[in-house]
Amino acid sequence: MTGPQPFRRPAIDLAGAQLEAFLVTGAANVRYLTGFTGSNGVVLVTPGGAVFFTDPRYEIQSAQQVACRVQVVRKGGLLPAVAAYAAKRQIRALGFEKDHFSYQQHQYLSTALPRAGLKPVEDVVLKQRMVKTDAEIALIRHSVLTNSNAFARAISTIKSGVTESETAAEIEYQMRKFGADRPSFETIVAFGSRTALPHAHPGPRALRPNELVLIDMGSSQEGYASDMTRVLHLGRIPRKTERMYRAVLEAQLAGLDAVRAGVTAGSVDRAARQVLKKHGLDHAFTHSTGHGLGLEIHEPPRLGKGDKTRLEAGMAITIEPGAYLEDYGGIRIEDTVVVTPSGCEVLTPTSKELIAL
Amino acid sequence: MTGPQPFRRPAIDLAGAQLEAFLVTGAANVRYLTGFTGSNGVVLVTPGGAVFFTDPRYEIQSAQQVACRVQVVRKGGLLPAVAAYAAKRQIRALGFEKDHFSYQQHQYLSTALPRAGLKPVEDVVLKQRMVKTDAEIALIRHSVLTNSNAFARAISTIKSGVTESETAAEIEYQMRKFGADRPSFETIVAFGSRTALPHAHPGPRALRPNELVLIDMGSSQEGYASDMTRVLHLGRIPRKTERMYRAVLEAQLAGLDAVRAGVTAGSVDRAARQVLKKHGLDHAFTHSTGHGLGLEIHEPPRLGKGDKTRLEAGMAITIEPGAYLEDYGGIRIEDTVVVTPSGCEVLTPTSKELIAL
Repeated sequence: MTGPQPFRRPAIDLAGAQLEAFLVTGAANVRYLTGFTGSNGVVLVTPGGAVFFTDPRYEIQSAQQVACRVQVVRKGGLLPAVAAYAAKRQIRALGFEKDHFSYQQHQYLSTALPRAGLKPVEDVVLKQRMVKTDAEIALIRHSVLTNSNAFARAISTIKSGVTESETAAEIEYQMRKFGADRPSFETIVAFGSRTALPHAHPGPRALRPNELVLIDMGSSQEGYASDMTRVLHLGRIPRKTERMYRAVLEAQLAGLDAVRAGVTAGSVDRAARQVLKKHGLDHAFTHSTGHGLGLEIHEPPRLGKGDKTRLEAGMAITIEPGAYLEDYGGIRIEDTVVVTPSGCEVLTPTSKELIAL
Repeated sequence: MTGPQPFRRPAIDLAGAQLEAFLVTGAANVRYLTGFTGSNGVVLVTPGGAVFFTDPRYEIQSAQQVACRVQVVRKGGLLPAVAAYAAKRQIRALGFEKDHFSYQQHQYLSTALPRAGLKPVEDVVLKQRMVKTDAEIALIRHSVLTNSNAFARAISTIKSGVTESETAAEIEYQMRKFGADRPSFETIVAFGSRTALPHAHPGPRALRPNELVLIDMGSSQEGYASDMTRVLHLGRIPRKTERMYRAVLEAQLAGLDAVRAGVTAGSVDRAARQVLKKHGLDHAFTHSTGHGLGLEIHEPPRLGKGDKTRLEAGMAITIEPGAYLEDYGGIRIEDTVVVTPSGCEVLTPTSKELIAL
C-alpha cells in the first residue's frame, strides 16, 4: 500500500437534496468512499468535507487508510459521537442510508437530534459502485486470475473418496497461496445429486465414481470479488448429463452474447432463459442469470427477469445460468465479465468444457 | 444430520406483548429458531405456530432443515410475501426485530399493511441465545478442539520468510481438514510491530528473525464459533516482550478467576484491567475483556467496562485481555470458556506459555 486512497465523495448533490450532511453506514459503501477495511466505521459527509468515525481498535489502521478527517470514539459507540458532532454544528437536515440504517438506529438518532430533520436517502453509493473505475477493474481481473489459478491447482486433488469439505478446504488454501485476501463467499462444493442445491454447503459427503462435481468459488483481492462456477464429472459422462451441460453452456454463451452497454439487464436474462426453454429446462433454472460484483459478491445490477437496469460500460457482472433437477443433479456455468460499449470482456480464463476426471 | 431440528419458539409472550405475530429477520436468530443455514429466510411466529419464508434457491434445503411450515416465495421478495400472509390473516399487531429491520423494510411494511400496528421488539432471540443448551456447548467444544488442533498443526510451518497471508492460509486449511465448516471470522496473523493492530488483516509481510507473531483464529463447527489468540516469538525473546507477556497472562488468569454465574460482565473486565494497571499497561488495553459467542462470533454479553449483565451458567464467552504498544508490538491471550455455577470451564486446551520458535 502506498498511503491512503483519496476520499471519494458520494454521488449526491447535498444542496440539491436539501441536506446539510449525509451519514454513510453501509460497510462496503464506507470502504468504497474511504478505503477503510475494518469492521466498525461510519462517515459523515458534509458539503465541505467528511469525518470518519471509528473505535479505538482501529486507531492505527484508520490513520493509515483513511484520507479524510478521523475521529476515534473512545466511549459510547459511533452513533452517539455522530449525534454529538451534528448537534454541535447545528446540522438541521441529515441524510441517512435507508438500506443500511436499522429501525433502532433511526429511533436513536431521532431522539438524540430532536431538531435535526432526518431524511432517508436511496443507496446512491451502491449505485455509484456499479460502474467500476479502471483501478477497480484491475483488482477484479487480478481476483479472477487468482481464482482460476486456485481452481486449476485444486481440482488435481479431486478423486473418488475425497469429501466436499476437503475439496473446499483445498480450494480456499490455494486461493490464499495465490494471494487472495480470502474467499469472496463461502466456497460451494457439491457432489452427486447434491449439485441440485444451488447453494449447497460443503459437507462430509465423499465423492463416488460416476458423479457430478459442482464448484462455485470466488476470491477476494484487496476487497474485490471474483465469482466462477464449473462442473466436473468423475468417470464416464451419462448422455442426460451431457445434454443438460450442452444446454446450460449454450444458454451461458447466449447470455454473454447479449451483454453490451445500453441493453437492459432483463434482456440478458431473457437471452439465457430462452435457450433453456428451447431445451425444456426453463423450469429447472430457478435463479437469475447473474449479478454485479465488486466490493461485495452481490451488487446491482441483478440480471433477473424483466429487470430494466441499463448495462453500462465498466460494470462487472456474472453470467451464470443453471439447471437443477432434484434427485438427479445440477449444472451451472459462470464467468465474471466486464461490460464494454460493444459487448463484454470475459475475464475468466478457465475452460468451459465439461471436465471428465 | 438426522432430519430437521425441532422449531424453537422465541422467548417472548406474544399475548403479553399484545402481538398477534412476530417477524424474525436477523439471520442468526432465524437459524437459531429454525436450523436454516441459507442466506435468505425470515420466520413469522404466531401464537399457534410459525411460517418460514425463503426463495426458490433454498426450496430443497429448507425442506430438509426447517421443521415449521415453509413458504417458498417465487416472486417479489420475502417481505411482500410476509405482508400478503399477514394481510390475509388480518394480523393487526405485528412485532419486528428492531435491530434487524432496516428503516427501508419498516417503511415498506408500514405501507403494505396500513392497518397493522407494527411494533418494535427488543432482540429477545439474541438474549435467549446467550445461555447455551448442552447440544450447543457440545458444538462449541468441538469447534474449540478443531481450532486448537489446526493451530498446533499450522504453527509448525511458521519460520523466517513466511508471510502473514501464507500463515493464515495454512491455518484455515488445517481448520477445514480438521472438519470446520469455515473460519468463524477472518483469521488474524500479524508479525512484528503489526501485532500492535488488534484487528490486522494478514498481508504480504514476511516474518523476520526476532519478531512477534500474533494469531487470533476461530473455527465454525455446524455454525458454532470458537475463538482463540496466542502469541509466538521467532528467536530469543526480549525482556520487554517477556514482561508484557507476563502481565497480559496474569490479567487473563485474573479474568478467568473472576468468571462465575451471578457476577457482572463488568466485574470480569475490571479484574483483568486492574492487573494491567498494576503493570502500567492499562492505557495499552484498548478493547474489552471478552464477548459471548455462539452462532455469531460476537454475541452478548460484552465483558466491557461497567457492563451490568449478570453472567449465567451455560454462557459461552471469551476472556482476552491484551496490550498494544504502537511501533513495538502487541500481546493478546484469549480462551473460549463456559460459565458454570462456581466458575468456568476453559474449553481451549492450547498451552498459554509464550512460544519461542
